[in-house]
Amino acid sequence: MTTPGSEVRTQGALEPPAVPCSSACREDPLRAAVTQHLKEFLGRRSLAIVRLDTDFADEVFDRLAWFVLEGGKRVRPVFAWWGWRAAGGADDGPEATAALRAASALELVQAFALFQDDVMDRSAVRRGRPAAHVEFANDHRSEGWFGDPDRYGESAALLAADLALVWAEDMFTEALRHMPDARERARGPWRAMHTEMVVGQFLDLRSQARSDEAESTPLRVNRLKTAAYSAERPLHLGAALADADEEVILALRRYGEAIGSAYQLRDDLLDLYGEPAQTGKAVGADLREGKRTLLLAVGLRRARERGDRKAVEVLDSAIGDPGLTDADVRTVADLLVALGAREAVEQRLGALLDEGTRSLADAPIAPVACEELRRRAHGAITRVT
Amino acid sequence: MTTPGSEVRTQGALEPPAVPCSSACREDPLRAAVTQHLKEFLGRRSLAIVRLDTDFADEVFDRLAWFVLEGGKRVRPVFAWWGWRAAGGADDGPEATAALRAASALELVQAFALFQDDVMDRSAVRRGRPAAHVEFANDHRSEGWFGDPDRYGESAALLAADLALVWAEDMFTEALRHMPDARERARGPWRAMHTEMVVGQFLDLRSQARSDEAESTPLRVNRLKTAAYSAERPLHLGAALADADEEVILALRRYGEAIGSAYQLRDDLLDLYGEPAQTGKAVGADLREGKRTLLLAVGLRRARERGDRKAVEVLDSAIGDPGLTDADVRTVADLLVALGAREAVEQRLGALLDEGTRSLADAPIAPVACEELRRRAHGAITRVT
Repeated sequence: MTTPGSEVRTQGALEPPAVPCSSACREDPLRAAVTQHLKEFLGRRSLAIVRLDTDFADEVFDRLAWFVLEGGKRVRPVFAWWGWRAAGGADDGPEATAALRAASALELVQAFALFQDDVMDRSAVRRGRPAAHVEFANDHRSEGWFGDPDRYGESAALLAADLALVWAEDMFTEALRHMPDARERARGPWRAMHTEMVVGQFLDLRSQARSDEAESTPLRVNRLKTAAYSAERPLHLGAALADADEEVILALRRYGEAIGSAYQLRDDLLDLYGEPAQTGKAVGADLREGKRTLLLAVGLRRARERGDRKAVEVLDSAIGDPGLTDADVRTVADLLVALGAREAVEQRLGALLDEGTRSLADAPIAPVACEELRRRAHGAITRVT
Repeated sequence: MTTPGSEVRTQGALEPPAVPCSSACREDPLRAAVTQHLKEFLGRRSLAIVRLDTDFADEVFDRLAWFVLEGGKRVRPVFAWWGWRAAGGADDGPEATAALRAASALELVQAFALFQDDVMDRSAVRRGRPAAHVEFANDHRSEGWFGDPDRYGESAALLAADLALVWAEDMFTEALRHMPDARERARGPWRAMHTEMVVGQFLDLRSQARSDEAESTPLRVNRLKTAAYSAERPLHLGAALADADEEVILALRRYGEAIGSAYQLRDDLLDLYGEPAQTGKAVGADLREGKRTLLLAVGLRRARERGDRKAVEVLDSAIGDPGLTDADVRTVADLLVALGAREAVEQRLGALLDEGTRSLADAPIAPVACEELRRRAHGAITRVT
């Protein structure tokens, strides 16, 4: 099997990436530098993997490399970079390069999380393509192998996820080998982020199992599973690398918690009101999986307050029903508008945006980073993908 | 839910463990010291976990802590310890304590591997008790929660596994914080072990899917999945901590590869010829799961060489049949004796024992370690559990 990822291997180890960010820094060169760091790391790893097993290289490594290099918005490395810059980290030079390389390892953590999440949720589509476990199962099916193709696909995807997590640690550790003090400082947020991610994922799983309707539950899940993992801890990590003082770290963490939570609320809205062609996911995918969002919790509470038993029944029976048609999803979406739940969530989004941007004024944050983080906060609220 | 693991939490952070090994070192104090290091680490972690979420602490942390503290033969930390001693590492003092603490993190890697393996294999029993995913599914069932209990159980067990893997890295890194040079040296084998474990697990999965009959395949799987992970790399890691020279490392790795492979062959024999009361696993569990062992590969080859089509058919249809009765398993076991496969595997075990113990003579290994490793080699071959 040849996948686009095999290109990494045939090119072998690559040249070190260019300086991560020019003085007139825009987003695209930063993302490109993250991709280049990942390409270089995976290129070096590929040599060891081919020596271990060429079939593993073809079937697992190439798929992981392709996934990491071809997709992803680089949200987490970019936040870590701006945490670094916010705390006075240099714009270029060897330390800036090492900091961005360490931050790029967050994309491997993300590959781990997505591969594993898709297995747990039995999600068939990721980034507009078949999810990893589906592709592995398709290999099994097309080759007519022994056993259950779906079980094979799930196991193989979990192993690819493991590899990504193990390599994230390696990439982080290696990137900072000449900055041992910075590495020790950054290990706190790096470590906390991993634990919070697992706890957040468990709370999400359990809230679905328990049909938990409390509005506080999705807020806690969002804080741990999305905000801490995607914004707060990456910012903290970047700031710790730059030896930030407590005041700057606290302000960045508050910003990250607010904007990360807002990002997730926006994601929940996009699940029902977004365009699949833009989001890369089927409409109502989270609803069908039984995800307990703030949007649904508010809708259920309001329907109960109004004594609207029919609305309660429609919502209750829709959550976690894999057989919902797109028309059913639209019915739920319209009902949540009628109940004022969509508006309530959008208001909360606005409040989080205010909270996040205000917290940036609480500490001596480098102006260039402050401006960029304000811009990104607005982007998180208005995004359509 | 209260589990035995909650004891770790209620006791909070514990006293530092005693010096790991007295001058008249026997196995039991060493194992006890490993457990004490794990208890101390988990005790400290429990404080942070309770702050994050008390339900997570009750349902996931306690189960993981119980699994890690109450079971396990401590094979990998003990090998790492003897790698340290083989290369001249001290028997006591702060460096010896740190080395054993770092080695104890291997038990968390093992908890990760077992929780995840049991999900992949749908194994119901582990160490004579319900596997983690079965216990989580039972929680779901007894509480009458929403959704599929088995899927919930699998997801929760995978998250507990993730936590164990993430914490293994933390424990390893923290244990060696005052020995940064040793940590850098040990990171090579630590890292290689993780990758090899994943690759080995994938090769095992794929050999089952492909009904691979080549005798070389189980040997490669054993080398990566068992020998490298359980013996070779732990020994390498301990020796690297003690700044061993190349000659000592190579001799220990050769020993580890041989004895680790022998350990797995013994495991394969115990699956069919062991006593469930002693092994803690159902008889024929690997056979039912479709595991492609050397024992089966030799049996199949011999049956084909003899033109015994009935024997080929019996073996072929038994591998991966979850409906086999214990009597069916006994039929396969007896057939493999009649085909000479059991004897061939036992001969290979003997050859590996010779190879392993001979390699110890190739390098200046500390005599106390040499003697212990010889003793352990014999133990690996003759064990019944």
